[in-house]
Amino acid sequence: MKMIIRIFFVLSLVSSISSASVQDFCIADPSGPQSPSGYSCKNPEHVTADDFAFSGLAKSGNTSNMIKAAVATGFAPAFAGVNGLGVSVARLDLAEGGVVPIHIHSGASEVLIVIEGTIRAGIISSANKVYLKTLQKGEVIVFPQGLLHFALNGGTGPAMAFAAFGSSNPGVQLVPNALFASDLPSELVEATNFLSHEEVKRIKGVLGGANEPSLSFS
Amino acid sequence: MKMIIRIFFVLSLVSSISSASVQDFCIADPSGPQSPSGYSCKNPEHVTADDFAFSGLAKSGNTSNMIKAAVATGFAPAFAGVNGLGVSVARLDLAEGGVVPIHIHSGASEVLIVIEGTIRAGIISSANKVYLKTLQKGEVIVFPQGLLHFALNGGTGPAMAFAAFGSSNPGVQLVPNALFASDLPSELVEATNFLSHEEVKRIKGVLGGANEPSLSFS
Amino acid sequence: MKMIIRIFFVLSLVSSISSASVQDFCIADPSGPQSPSGYSCKNPEHVTADDFAFSGLAKSGNTSNMIKAAVATGFAPAFAGVNGLGVSVARLDLAEGGVVPIHIHSGASEVLIVIEGTIRAGIISSANKVYLKTLQKGEVIVFPQGLLHFALNGGTGPAMAFAAFGSSNPGVQLVPNALFASDLPSELVEATNFLSHEEVKRIKGVLGGANEPSLSFS
Amino acid sequence: MKMIIRIFFVLSLVSSISSASVQDFCIADPSGPQSPSGYSCKNPEHVTADDFAFSGLAKSGNTSNMIKAAVATGFAPAFAGVNGLGVSVARLDLAEGGVVPIHIHSGASEVLIVIEGTIRAGIISSANKVYLKTLQKGEVIVFPQGLLHFALNGGTGPAMAFAAFGSSNPGVQLVPNALFASDLPSELVEATNFLSHEEVKRIKGVLGGANEPSLSFS
Amino acid sequence: MKMIIRIFFVLSLVSSISSASVQDFCIADPSGPQSPSGYSCKNPEHVTADDFAFSGLAKSGNTSNMIKAAVATGFAPAFAGVNGLGVSVARLDLAEGGVVPIHIHSGASEVLIVIEGTIRAGIISSANKVYLKTLQKGEVIVFPQGLLHFALNGGTGPAMAFAAFGSSNPGVQLVPNALFASDLPSELVEATNFLSHEEVKRIKGVLGGANEPSLSFS
Amino acid sequence: MKMIIRIFFVLSLVSSISSASVQDFCIADPSGPQSPSGYSCKNPEHVTADDFAFSGLAKSGNTSNMIKAAVATGFAPAFAGVNGLGVSVARLDLAEGGVVPIHIHSGASEVLIVIEGTIRAGIISSANKVYLKTLQKGEVIVFPQGLLHFALNGGTGPAMAFAAFGSSNPGVQLVPNALFASDLPSELVEATNFLSHEEVKRIKGVLGGANEPSLSFS
Repeated sequence: MKMIIRIFFVLSLVSSISSASVQDFCIADPSGPQSPSGYSCKNPEHVTADDFAFSGLAKSGNTSNMIKAAVATGFAPAFAGVNGLGVSVARLDLAEGGVVPIHIHSGASEVLIVIEGTIRAGIISSANKVYLKTLQKGEVIVFPQGLLHFALNGGTGPAMAFAAFGSSNPGVQLVPNALFASDLPSELVEATNFLSHEEVKRIKGVLGGANEPSLSFS
Repeated sequence: MKMIIRIFFVLSLVSSISSASVQDFCIADPSGPQSPSGYSCKNPEHVTADDFAFSGLAKSGNTSNMIKAAVATGFAPAFAGVNGLGVSVARLDLAEGGVVPIHIHSGASEVLIVIEGTIRAGIISSANKVYLKTLQKGEVIVFPQGLLHFALNGGTGPAMAFAAFGSSNPGVQLVPNALFASDLPSELVEATNFLSHEEVKRIKGVLGGANEPSLSFS
Repeated sequence: MKMIIRIFFVLSLVSSISSASVQDFCIADPSGPQSPSGYSCKNPEHVTADDFAFSGLAKSGNTSNMIKAAVATGFAPAFAGVNGLGVSVARLDLAEGGVVPIHIHSGASEVLIVIEGTIRAGIISSANKVYLKTLQKGEVIVFPQGLLHFALNGGTGPAMAFAAFGSSNPGVQLVPNALFASDLPSELVEATNFLSHEEVKRIKGVLGGANEPSLSFS
Repeated sequence: MKMIIRIFFVLSLVSSISSASVQDFCIADPSGPQSPSGYSCKNPEHVTADDFAFSGLAKSGNTSNMIKAAVATGFAPAFAGVNGLGVSVARLDLAEGGVVPIHIHSGASEVLIVIEGTIRAGIISSANKVYLKTLQKGEVIVFPQGLLHFALNGGTGPAMAFAAFGSSNPGVQLVPNALFASDLPSELVEATNFLSHEEVKRIKGVLGGANEPSLSFS
Repeated sequence: MKMIIRIFFVLSLVSSISSASVQDFCIADPSGPQSPSGYSCKNPEHVTADDFAFSGLAKSGNTSNMIKAAVATGFAPAFAGVNGLGVSVARLDLAEGGVVPIHIHSGASEVLIVIEGTIRAGIISSANKVYLKTLQKGEVIVFPQGLLHFALNGGTGPAMAFAAFGSSNPGVQLVPNALFASDLPSELVEATNFLSHEEVKRIKGVLGGANEPSLSFS
Repeated sequence: MKMIIRIFFVLSLVSSISSASVQDFCIADPSGPQSPSGYSCKNPEHVTADDFAFSGLAKSGNTSNMIKAAVATGFAPAFAGVNGLGVSVARLDLAEGGVVPIHIHSGASEVLIVIEGTIRAGIISSANKVYLKTLQKGEVIVFPQGLLHFALNGGTGPAMAFAAFGSSNPGVQLVPNALFASDLPSELVEATNFLSHEEVKRIKGVLGGANEPSLSFS
């Protein structure tokens, strides 16, 4: 009898405290409105263990492409559990000779963890200083937020790495794709990059960017 | 006549400026969607002085329980005015012999202000270093974010304190309740805490946790 | 044939990556709910170049008023593009003899860039130390977040400046307007500012504040 | 024998992990350089329990002054333990008739917890809307960051409150002291606040500000 | 000749811009003072590519211990490159039957990426709700900041995972080590966790905590 | 006599409060250590009004160069007053035909305010979507943090603009300079950007980058 009473009191303590704790996490609900801080939160009562997990990086990416590379991302909302928590993940597969073109993540710094093979990585600072590093299995490199960087398969045989970011949605902007696979008119690509008309035309042909100035300044 | 014109111009200055100021505050509207930054904002036109105030901590808590302690919280949305403002409050009542079990606040640091009696407080750092301090009326202690800490009534007669936090929703996670009043299967409580089966069973009996592994890994 | 295949593979790399990038920006959608982090985001598919631009500061403000000054703001949501990006802008026009009364921005620091004429600016610190500076065309001053500051036309002829802030919604609170153009009862204005009844009555007459204590403590 | 080995291994696990944890907290070392994030950190090896506590608010302040009020602050570095933790505290004593003049905290929102007596509090928003609230013992009000606010003793007999802030150094800027107890030249006080020369001269006499324009624009 | 002039002008543009860019990164200099934001920055002129890399996680940890687990961390300053960048890494090795006890990271959320074997992970929320998930190779789980969680080898044979965090110094606090391997007096361990004297004595014997109350409240 | 006493008491109130306010601002002291949050703070007692101002953007830049453009920056520590305040400024001069190459600011969003002439600006999102906008005098555009963008003189005659950023040190990384004026070996420029050997050699010749792979992977 005394025990039952005690349990009741303890539980009431617990429940009075835990009622405040609705925002330990904010599983992304992509059907709700987005805010600058991320996606709307799924009703916590409907959250299950599966919401914290992500299996989208478990399989090798298809590297049978021009750059012999594949990148898969686990950002919000694809990985709904990371929404608002300041972390996210990605996977990089590089066949022999594979390259991840120069790119930036506008929203977070990145750590790249080599799981298989040898990866060569480069960083260019705002002062245009270049940092080049060869990484073996189990080694890690950090790419500071917003700095241009790239990665290459530096060995024979495939290489694989996982990347993690300090934001649930760090963004990825590949420079050559931004320039040559977008609708940016060729004359602007040329003028803003010191590139020749012929070279822009050639790479747009390869990457699929529109050759005509289909877009104009509003 | 001249005065009226002047007033008009000044008011138009004021109104042109103030139209931008809809987010001095964001009173929680729990009926709207939540985001990682907190609750939706109540329409500012409907905000009254009462929205900034909270009376839920005015009365003593009921300490007639096993731990002889009561904690009441003024986090968002219970205290709607603190939403998004990076502060919140709580009240702690400790009868003689009262104890607040070891717990953490995942989202903010805490300042504890002793209002009545004597309170003994402890902090354990990540380096497993222990800091123990006796606090009298009017004295304050800070518990760094996310570190394990506890409080005891260190005197004769009741003790009372107010706590404030650097987040509108700091969370509260009581370690023994997490272990022994939750559905965490006993074998997992044992394996992850070095506890014996008998001890876990005994405390689960006291705190009300399920004795059977009703939950499994999905 | 080979080229087509290559393009396909590159595009699939691009699209797998870019699908995560829905929050490079969050153009304000004032019709959606607000959160502590700002306005809801407009659907990115409907965003156009115009959403990043703002023309509301292009024309001179009307300075034919008591303070011979005009302030126009480009905060969210008026300037929808800055929502969530931690920046915003304003324009200040000062006729000869013009004054921007003492004010604060609760949410951000400000840089003021003088475009035309001579502006004198003042800052008062929390230690009540005063910093006074004369700025010519092209010179800049920074006003730290939340500190009282003001600006005067320090020359002959008009002066103009642009201001920028480290928040999309920094707020503007003009001290004399808060005191004398609001509904704050005169006795409270007097008691909390050491001002005489006559002076408060006089300035309320000028700035348009209610003379009667129409508001009371709830 | 087996036990000793086990202990050794567990301890090595513990120490390998805890070696990273030097920044659970950053007790202010005022003798070191300051950074925008706060004071330098005291060597963690020299930190004791006393570093987390503060007794400077334990005694009543002396309210035998013009405003019949006393404010004591526990900000960093006076309360060294809060440095970098996003919280701090203060104490407010109000004799009967006591007033805390209109002021702002540039760096954080505040919660005010009434411990004794009756306190009337007011907030003025950026839109010059006034919120007035009477608070009894145990009741709490939140003052949003950077907004003008004030407090009065609303009852008979003394009143006392504790305040907490969402920053270790929120700042305090009392408007009348900024205007009338600083070196701000009278003509600037007048021009930027719509005040008369006589009134400024009178209040400067009361609050101690220099009557002569001892300061000029550099 | 024309080319030389052009190069000169472009370089002067580059150098005028890059001179501002000294804080793309802040490699930890542990010999300098620490601030709440992290370690002092190494002189950028002395930074090399090696400063961005970390090889301390490349080898398997020794799991010949009581918990059959090893954790190695790459936090600042061990991994100097992550200082101030909001990311860090760790490696977890689990022999068959291995367990990582219940723990928290006070300073960041974590993503755990399974590289080898099967790992079972658990999270306990502030509402004492339990989330249990089995993860295979390549699968990821997120542990929200400050929430209690644990991991087990869920298969036969060894398991290995890398973890990444949204802070350069997230902290690690193992609950059983905090309770039973620290100097926390046994009577306090018992009183704050509902544990029996015998059980505390037993586990302290296993984990190496002092059995005597060597520490008292200052 | 009574007045003197009153003044004394008020001043003691003021001084007890203001003693906490040493961090309203943190003027950069480049001679002290840097932290991830910025430069060390100059002793507040030595701060003068000049520390808040910056005149380095007052004069037109020299646009007699290949890109017919000049950029001058007012970031910390050149503009010491903005250190830690989350704002900074820059000036852009464009002769007729002038171009600011594609670039990014890793640390902040930017607002560009056109002061003279016509400027055409472009933004490329992570989804490789292009936004192009023509801006006249007084018009503003926002460039979200970390996104590739550029600007052109879109009229006849010179154009001038001021830019402001939401960080005291936003960084500037010009893509063509990073690729062609740095020491990045040509083979890496080619491999990571789909560029031909001839084109890279040609532009390196123009921009001054080393033609030989003087740098290798450590």
